[in-house]
Amino acid sequence: MATTPVYRPVTPAIVAALEGVVGAANVVRPGPDLDRFSHDESEDLFAAPEVAVRPGSTAEVAAVLALAHRERVPVTPRAAGTGLSGGALPLHGGIVLSVERMDRILEVDEANLVAVVQPGVVTERLQQEVEARGLYYPPDPASRGSCTLGGNIAENAGGPHCVKYGLTKDYVLSLEAVTADGRVFRTGGKVRKDVAGYDLAHLLVGSEGTLAVVTEATLRLIPLPRFRRVVFAPFPDLDAAARAIPALARARITPSALELMERSALAAAQAHLQRSIPGGEAEASLIVEVDGHDEAVVEADLVRVGEVLAEAGASDVVLADSPQKERDLWRIRRCIGEAVKKIASYVECDTAVPPSKVPDLLRGVRAAAARHGVRQISYGHAGDGNLHVNVLSDDPDPGHRERALRPAIEAIYAVATSLGGTITGEHGVGCVAARYLPTCRDANAIAVMRAVKQALDPAGILNPGKVLDGPDFHAIPRRPRRRTATP
Amino acid sequence: MATTPVYRPVTPAIVAALEGVVGAANVVRPGPDLDRFSHDESEDLFAAPEVAVRPGSTAEVAAVLALAHRERVPVTPRAAGTGLSGGALPLHGGIVLSVERMDRILEVDEANLVAVVQPGVVTERLQQEVEARGLYYPPDPASRGSCTLGGNIAENAGGPHCVKYGLTKDYVLSLEAVTADGRVFRTGGKVRKDVAGYDLAHLLVGSEGTLAVVTEATLRLIPLPRFRRVVFAPFPDLDAAARAIPALARARITPSALELMERSALAAAQAHLQRSIPGGEAEASLIVEVDGHDEAVVEADLVRVGEVLAEAGASDVVLADSPQKERDLWRIRRCIGEAVKKIASYVECDTAVPPSKVPDLLRGVRAAAARHGVRQISYGHAGDGNLHVNVLSDDPDPGHRERALRPAIEAIYAVATSLGGTITGEHGVGCVAARYLPTCRDANAIAVMRAVKQALDPAGILNPGKVLDGPDFHAIPRRPRRRTATP
Repeated sequence: MATTPVYRPVTPAIVAALEGVVGAANVVRPGPDLDRFSHDESEDLFAAPEVAVRPGSTAEVAAVLALAHRERVPVTPRAAGTGLSGGALPLHGGIVLSVERMDRILEVDEANLVAVVQPGVVTERLQQEVEARGLYYPPDPASRGSCTLGGNIAENAGGPHCVKYGLTKDYVLSLEAVTADGRVFRTGGKVRKDVAGYDLAHLLVGSEGTLAVVTEATLRLIPLPRFRRVVFAPFPDLDAAARAIPALARARITPSALELMERSALAAAQAHLQRSIPGGEAEASLIVEVDGHDEAVVEADLVRVGEVLAEAGASDVVLADSPQKERDLWRIRRCIGEAVKKIASYVECDTAVPPSKVPDLLRGVRAAAARHGVRQISYGHAGDGNLHVNVLSDDPDPGHRERALRPAIEAIYAVATSLGGTITGEHGVGCVAARYLPTCRDANAIAVMRAVKQALDPAGILNPGKVLDGPDFHAIPRRPRRRTATP
Repeated sequence: MATTPVYRPVTPAIVAALEGVVGAANVVRPGPDLDRFSHDESEDLFAAPEVAVRPGSTAEVAAVLALAHRERVPVTPRAAGTGLSGGALPLHGGIVLSVERMDRILEVDEANLVAVVQPGVVTERLQQEVEARGLYYPPDPASRGSCTLGGNIAENAGGPHCVKYGLTKDYVLSLEAVTADGRVFRTGGKVRKDVAGYDLAHLLVGSEGTLAVVTEATLRLIPLPRFRRVVFAPFPDLDAAARAIPALARARITPSALELMERSALAAAQAHLQRSIPGGEAEASLIVEVDGHDEAVVEADLVRVGEVLAEAGASDVVLADSPQKERDLWRIRRCIGEAVKKIASYVECDTAVPPSKVPDLLRGVRAAAARHGVRQISYGHAGDGNLHVNVLSDDPDPGHRERALRPAIEAIYAVATSLGGTITGEHGVGCVAARYLPTCRDANAIAVMRAVKQALDPAGILNPGKVLDGPDFHAIPRRPRRRTATP
């Protein structure tokens, strides 16, 4: 077990040196402006850095890190701060290094099907840019309108379309990054096949800013599927909905999205959107999307999907027969995260299991929640077994609340891992799940991870308290929920 | 720069201890039986281990490694020995650890589209096993009939179908592996989305047995495309053939294979197969395959491919209009490696560049070969920019030969890297390219790789002399070509 290094405070001299690197306008000192660098979208977690810097180039990132390393000041890299695992929280104070100014799409290379981007590019902006050229960048976390590619890479972000197209890591060809002590390196170029040495790019993807800071990414693009159809299928019982998932796999159908929403999730969406959703009273519902380059094939796939869903026991299979209805269906699905936030204090367990185990996961989660007297709302990317289980408590007292939530969360993680699953499918470990990493990784694997961390960041300045040596659940600093609400 | 550790010899006591672990029948002592553990398919490279062991289980692999680590004896992991970069050569003697007995397909899980395999399973055997169930494991190196999945994972093997379906790494969900000092760990389970900690599986893929020994792999499967069409297109000039590659990308066509053969490559194939190939006199030829789940779409794609090829300047576009002709076309393509071996001593440069740079690569390679007075034969996976450049010398004197080949090889690597490419697309660095790693990776990236190696194998016993600290080209031990010929 590693011990936390002793960090030094950010002195006025260090602030002055940082101003020398990035310019005074890009150094945020303590005060109200620092608030937005003190939280992400994880519940009510809150920890203020001593200072935030906004470098504008790789060279500036390198200079900031070299300085921080020399001074033994912790550095928390930050992209858009839309994470759900507290990965961007400066738990040990120090410097928040925001890449928000590094927001350029440097190149879209149509001949090689590649985009070269800076880490501060909003994901949806890249998607729109390449879609205009008939190309597609599939990873689409719910926050794609505000999250950025640097954060997506740090967390190996997913989204609904991963079930067919894969995760962020499947689109990273190579990276430019800066080591904890300020050395810039590149992992490769615009080449998909490149086995020259260790795959450092994919070591960094998902490492949550604990091993290096990504300053540029070369991303793979694919031709944009021209046709897409979406259906909504309510089911009278949860098991039937869940059974439809392996049934689609057995029918050799690869949907481009396969989402499940429990009744409680749809209820939250209805309350959030302030309208009723037809079929919203069903025990569980699926959204199934198929896409492709040929309209007739997509239509044929749709028919087969409908058959499988009906056979699995859907009470209805409703086609979104206009782009408007399609967008509406996705808005319902995408609003659930926000909708749950409105209801009560919650903790989100980002469980993932082998897809055929989704019925067992849902059953186990319901039983665990009942046993521990908490409410839960489950929904998510059922097609790849990734269900977001939101555990809710209405208790106004934070102490009570956490005491109630914690055993429920641990029981839910135990259900997922007992089914051969994991405690985080796409949100990352961050600080919220760090204490639970040993529930889904064996001690030898964690020892190897520690050795890698020690090798790349021996001084332990990069994003301390995340992934490996996170704080106890109760020890993560929070602030009252009202004050963190995004305006 | 790391220095090579001092290794201890394999004493009779160590041999006895190894026999205690794997059984006397699975310890191969010095003698003719040890020959097959002394080379792979890399030219005429040859280095004998002191002993070879054939463990039958993960526990035995762990015990062998723990023993070797304690005794400071180098261990060279070996799968089928079909590698082309000398990765399986025990350059420092010691123990060859062969996984050939660990050859079971442990599970094909149709509901979760997953196969669980041991490292000694022949790639084609898995492919046949899953194809019988309507599933597909795409990575298909030329040696797929004899190579095994453990070697594919160690080298991140590719093959013709990677251009559409990705490399070995794109199908590895998780691994079980053993550290240099004999600790077993797992990186995850049957879950595609799993971001719990660092992605150790993908750190190991392509690490060539220098970081850990893989003992089990959980692999992703996809539905088997039911329809496939292949065309052969001779071109009167090389540039036109090469230009067809980005033209297909610009037309948003994703072929399932896109192979290029120079005239000299087809000539070698004709000599090897002892028959003439129609169109074989063309300056360069492409093989383009399209596949899919719908026959009409595949036919439509084929028509578009034909149009793009004709527009790019193909003198003909010949459809393989029967399964027999299709197999024949692939046999021609797949025999080239063997065919070149028959001609003369050669070194294969496994160059890869951004696909749009293939014309520049081919021009540069031709110029470099001419400048250095050697013959070259180029062919390969042009669709992802990965061309195998075989540099030939007929000089019977090994010393002369290497003196002639070496500057040509270096010039060819320089061409590839100057185009933003790499010195190895799919064969691995092994020992043949280790000295050239700094031509395509910067010093800081190599320092990070060294730190990772040091962290995972501080005693340096795992596959020394590969990837990072390889010998000089002249210092790689060889033996006369006749004697290594596979019977």
